[in-house]
Amino acid sequence: MRQFVLPPSWSGEEDLVLTGGEHHYLSRVLRLSPGIEFPALDSAGRRFDCCILSMDSESTSVKIRPQNKKVPEADFQLSLILGIPRGKKMDQVVRQATECGVRRIVPFLSDHSSVRLEPGDFRRKQERWKKVAREALQQSGTGIPPEILLPIRHKDLKATTRDLDTVLFFHEKPLGDSGLHGLLQNTSGRIGLLIGPEGGFSHKELELFSSLHYDSIYLGDSVLRAETAAIYAVAAVQTILRESGRWQLKSPEHGA
Amino acid sequence: MRQFVLPPSWSGEEDLVLTGGEHHYLSRVLRLSPGIEFPALDSAGRRFDCCILSMDSESTSVKIRPQNKKVPEADFQLSLILGIPRGKKMDQVVRQATECGVRRIVPFLSDHSSVRLEPGDFRRKQERWKKVAREALQQSGTGIPPEILLPIRHKDLKATTRDLDTVLFFHEKPLGDSGLHGLLQNTSGRIGLLIGPEGGFSHKELELFSSLHYDSIYLGDSVLRAETAAIYAVAAVQTILRESGRWQLKSPEHGA
Repeated sequence: MRQFVLPPSWSGEEDLVLTGGEHHYLSRVLRLSPGIEFPALDSAGRRFDCCILSMDSESTSVKIRPQNKKVPEADFQLSLILGIPRGKKMDQVVRQATECGVRRIVPFLSDHSSVRLEPGDFRRKQERWKKVAREALQQSGTGIPPEILLPIRHKDLKATTRDLDTVLFFHEKPLGDSGLHGLLQNTSGRIGLLIGPEGGFSHKELELFSSLHYDSIYLGDSVLRAETAAIYAVAAVQTILRESGRWQLKSPEHGA
Repeated sequence: MRQFVLPPSWSGEEDLVLTGGEHHYLSRVLRLSPGIEFPALDSAGRRFDCCILSMDSESTSVKIRPQNKKVPEADFQLSLILGIPRGKKMDQVVRQATECGVRRIVPFLSDHSSVRLEPGDFRRKQERWKKVAREALQQSGTGIPPEILLPIRHKDLKATTRDLDTVLFFHEKPLGDSGLHGLLQNTSGRIGLLIGPEGGFSHKELELFSSLHYDSIYLGDSVLRAETAAIYAVAAVQTILRESGRWQLKSPEHGA
């Protein structure tokens, strides 16, 4: 079930010498030895067959050949825009969203994010989250690593969501009459899911979302923590989209 | 958002002296002081109003009165039957399932559970998971603590699921043509969700589930880890049930 992800520095050469963490993973965790073949992914989600040529205490040499099989790609592409929660929680969301095949993760410096990030920290944080995603990919066997953007601010939301059909923000109170089935009935599948941090969204943010024509979604009476709400929303939307051939909206005369 | 959960030893008396962790939580974490009122839950999910009468360095005295408001109870009652994963992962599932309002959690000693539990450990484990659920309840404000059963074995499955309308087991490969919308269209809402541990279900288990008329559900191409699959399944089923007034199955002539 585990998958090896080739290092981001790999640029397509057929022979590669792995050291450090990757060498350790192959030799100590997977306990592979010369002659063994194993599947791998590059950071764009392409699949390769690798064969171990030699291995010593410091490094592993592998031969890499492209697999012919194409990665099955879901028709729908979810972007998860997440008010950045505290460290461990963000890691958990990145890990679980990666397993679920979320295509893009957008860390959002929202009003109630308790994390203070300076622009100088952005790239370091992004690298950390990319590493968490690569590890999740290795464990789950999911094919496609998510794109992880640099943290964005309020003024970046409009541009970041420009290519999406629909952006849904998840709120503790029902703000309208919209059900997920109704909002997702005629979509091409490029959906943004906007999840608040621990403290939810500010009044100013709700006004901004409204001006950008984002739709409000209510997840029921339960008060979910940020990291639970993120995976809950992904599951809800993916399930409805995956089964879109099976359901239709009730016609008004049958409506509840 | 936080809620105080009264100790399980509380048996309804109006005046209560709290010590230890509960005293610490009220005095140091919430920083309450005499005269302050705060809401609380008992371990059956009933709501109370508490008022702090006095507080010293060792203990807090409170007066407890029932609230008149009734806890809104979801129409559907989910039982999560979970092949026990390793320690931290089970805690995470209990925590997140509690937030989501799952009504019953059934730890299942499945063939591929990597945890070795002797009957002598059962009650200690159950107590630990109940504690995790109480803590999740305090953080999320969800009203109703789940019932957490003692770990069960294969021979107990039939009796444990007898009062459920439908039991769905989640499998890595599509075993049939069933969509969740189809399986959930005419349910009274008493649903069992059966999730495997890290290694999935054994062939013998799949045969047992079939003989018990459990239905197989496929969560898409992604390979989810056990703790992600559990919350994913809860979200998928709750969303479809919560919106059951909005959708209907496509009639055959419209079917995909």
